[in-house]
Amino acid sequence: MRTIAIGVLGLGNVGTGTLQLLRDNRDAIEARVGARLDVRAVLVRDPNKPRDVELGGARLTTRPADILDDPEIEIVVELIGGLDPARDHVLRALRAGKHVVTANKALLAERGEQIFAEASQRGLAVFFEGSVAGGTPLLRSLREGLASDRIEALTGIVNGTSNYILDAMTRTGARYEDALRAAQEAGYAEADPTLDVDGSDAAHKLALLALVSFGVRVDPGAIHREGVTGIDPFDIKTADELGYVIKSLAIARRSARGVSLRVHPTMVPKTHVLAGVHGSYNACLVESRALGRSLYYGRGAGPMPTGVAVVSDVIEVARLITGRASHEDAGARLLPKSGAQPERVDPLPLDELECENYLCIHVPNQPGVLGRCAACLGRHGVSIKRMFQEAPRGDAPVSMVIFTESVPERSVAAALAEMSTFDILSRPTDRIRILDPDTID
Amino acid sequence: MRTIAIGVLGLGNVGTGTLQLLRDNRDAIEARVGARLDVRAVLVRDPNKPRDVELGGARLTTRPADILDDPEIEIVVELIGGLDPARDHVLRALRAGKHVVTANKALLAERGEQIFAEASQRGLAVFFEGSVAGGTPLLRSLREGLASDRIEALTGIVNGTSNYILDAMTRTGARYEDALRAAQEAGYAEADPTLDVDGSDAAHKLALLALVSFGVRVDPGAIHREGVTGIDPFDIKTADELGYVIKSLAIARRSARGVSLRVHPTMVPKTHVLAGVHGSYNACLVESRALGRSLYYGRGAGPMPTGVAVVSDVIEVARLITGRASHEDAGARLLPKSGAQPERVDPLPLDELECENYLCIHVPNQPGVLGRCAACLGRHGVSIKRMFQEAPRGDAPVSMVIFTESVPERSVAAALAEMSTFDILSRPTDRIRILDPDTID
Repeated sequence: MRTIAIGVLGLGNVGTGTLQLLRDNRDAIEARVGARLDVRAVLVRDPNKPRDVELGGARLTTRPADILDDPEIEIVVELIGGLDPARDHVLRALRAGKHVVTANKALLAERGEQIFAEASQRGLAVFFEGSVAGGTPLLRSLREGLASDRIEALTGIVNGTSNYILDAMTRTGARYEDALRAAQEAGYAEADPTLDVDGSDAAHKLALLALVSFGVRVDPGAIHREGVTGIDPFDIKTADELGYVIKSLAIARRSARGVSLRVHPTMVPKTHVLAGVHGSYNACLVESRALGRSLYYGRGAGPMPTGVAVVSDVIEVARLITGRASHEDAGARLLPKSGAQPERVDPLPLDELECENYLCIHVPNQPGVLGRCAACLGRHGVSIKRMFQEAPRGDAPVSMVIFTESVPERSVAAALAEMSTFDILSRPTDRIRILDPDTID
Repeated sequence: MRTIAIGVLGLGNVGTGTLQLLRDNRDAIEARVGARLDVRAVLVRDPNKPRDVELGGARLTTRPADILDDPEIEIVVELIGGLDPARDHVLRALRAGKHVVTANKALLAERGEQIFAEASQRGLAVFFEGSVAGGTPLLRSLREGLASDRIEALTGIVNGTSNYILDAMTRTGARYEDALRAAQEAGYAEADPTLDVDGSDAAHKLALLALVSFGVRVDPGAIHREGVTGIDPFDIKTADELGYVIKSLAIARRSARGVSLRVHPTMVPKTHVLAGVHGSYNACLVESRALGRSLYYGRGAGPMPTGVAVVSDVIEVARLITGRASHEDAGARLLPKSGAQPERVDPLPLDELECENYLCIHVPNQPGVLGRCAACLGRHGVSIKRMFQEAPRGDAPVSMVIFTESVPERSVAAALAEMSTFDILSRPTDRIRILDPDTID
């Protein structure tokens, strides 16, 4: 039986999980691939550090060239993350004729064009199941299972850190800062959580989902994003009382006019399936022409869930090498035989969106103030569906909660902009979009 | 490019959906398979009936032999359902060297052994993605995506009719009979709904899930099942007040002692992801060693969702024929090269199960009666976690609601059996199991 040599860049949590799965499932993998997979070398920072995994014959090295220039290595598994030096390593691997498996969503979302072009020219694979919702076969299902279908929309909880924080705030009534600290202590948030909590990580994943589902390439920087840092316990409590939970959603939808992409906190009815996604779990609701609605749910990160995704990609690439799979298969849309690249598109401007909204206006308890705000909304065509306010307590500011009808984004934006110039507001108005009723069964 | 001839048995809803998908996605399918798929003939009862689908070159016939004896046909798609004559047709197709795709869960659950043995001997495929949760790639994901993992448990809503009825009862407070009638009017229940509402259909699906996930064959008749016919609005309302919804679940779990399989109504916390599965949707929560918990959700039936599943199987079988896939792939566990068959096992007896329970005891409003029931539970070791009773209204019977601790099934059964001999009960005691807290995040 022939042997396929593999080089792994990075031996953190995911790298360790990947090596362990490759070893534990050696026989099953051999049967599926028709070849033996041999991890030849692993790039690490410190070769003397004790490791939690049996390395077998794999050599630890600190020199990228030991992997990238080894002509026997056919598959490079990139697990170091970040843009640099990951990009250089991946490009160098491709130029040396090696297939690439990576879980690096930032790299592919930001620099994917060059990487996929390089791969396509040389007929090489770049697979990235582990980059989105590691614990579910989401990308694979979008590509393969739905091959005879057309995907119209995706609504996902794709950032485990944000979901963990919002879920903790919902369960315990905690403030954002305290929930973040708890998430950090539990290992669900980084020391610097910025990219997770500001929506950037979700935007990267959304760009990759749009690539796989719609066959279009989008600059993740052009995706509208709002983080979870502005959510406060009053919003969570009000949502709860009205039958909603607040989730940070990444939403993609295509229409005749183009592709709409956005990441923002959203009020989701408690009875909706996405409301049942707790802690650091990920989920993605897919709407497609033939299947209707389907959902994939699982752990979004972690050594073993992401390791399973990476190993499934390694198996698929190895099957390309042994001829048990063809390029038309899984990579069809990313590696078109013609060498054609996915079309680059700009997402539709957000102001074309229509949705219902939750607004919470904070004003001093004075006559005429609420009326002035309501009149402002009316002037901009923002119809009010329901509105209520708790009984004022002495001179404390009051919070007026408004649910709007489905109105154009630009109307809400204009009303909020005008209202922000009022000298009467105690603090800026909170605004959370409400899940599109079309997404609700 | 070579052509692969296909024969389809049955042109009902799923058959029509299948033909339409094969036609609409012809080019994409050709690229994936490396051959042209040609539906040569379709078995129907009445060839003169007007059809909703363009038949292309497909010939309608009323004679099974036109398909089963046509040496050019390489794939037979069985969509007539039921045991007979489907079984004869499938066996005859296999004996003639044809691969089989079917969505017939009853056939495979009841007669699978003979069918799979016949296929295995001849190196033929029998694929059945459409038989369970048609609208999700559940079986495919269990087989392939989890190839480097070990599945420990499945908890599924796999019968859309039962779920539709319980969901309607929850939303509207309707009685079972009225919800069933509404389901029939909406097309979500058959005129004779017995197999759906008594748990038999779910037991068939559970047997197939156990085959694919655990590699064991179980007689579906040996699977403990309880239907939804005994659920009444009081149970639904009490569940709601205590933060639960009632769902009919199919549960499979393996342990060192064996495989436990059961279908019964279950109290699910409202915040659990399975509580968000409404209407006729299906969902299956999978617990596996490496991935942890993952969930697949989608339409369980319908022409297009099931058609997508059938077409994905047809593509896979066609790729076997063109050499683009190998038997070690998808069918690995069902078509072992060795010709070995999955082990036949008996499910563990239910009385080894431990779970929490909801009991509702209906008794006349008389002193001492409740005490007698509580004492009976105590005698059998059924510990009470919480208990409450509404204020009695005059002489009307009262309903005492009891939540038990996690206790052995045999203790509950013994207590309920003894209690049923009491002459004081106004009507039989309701009993609903509570979702295993291990299944709850």
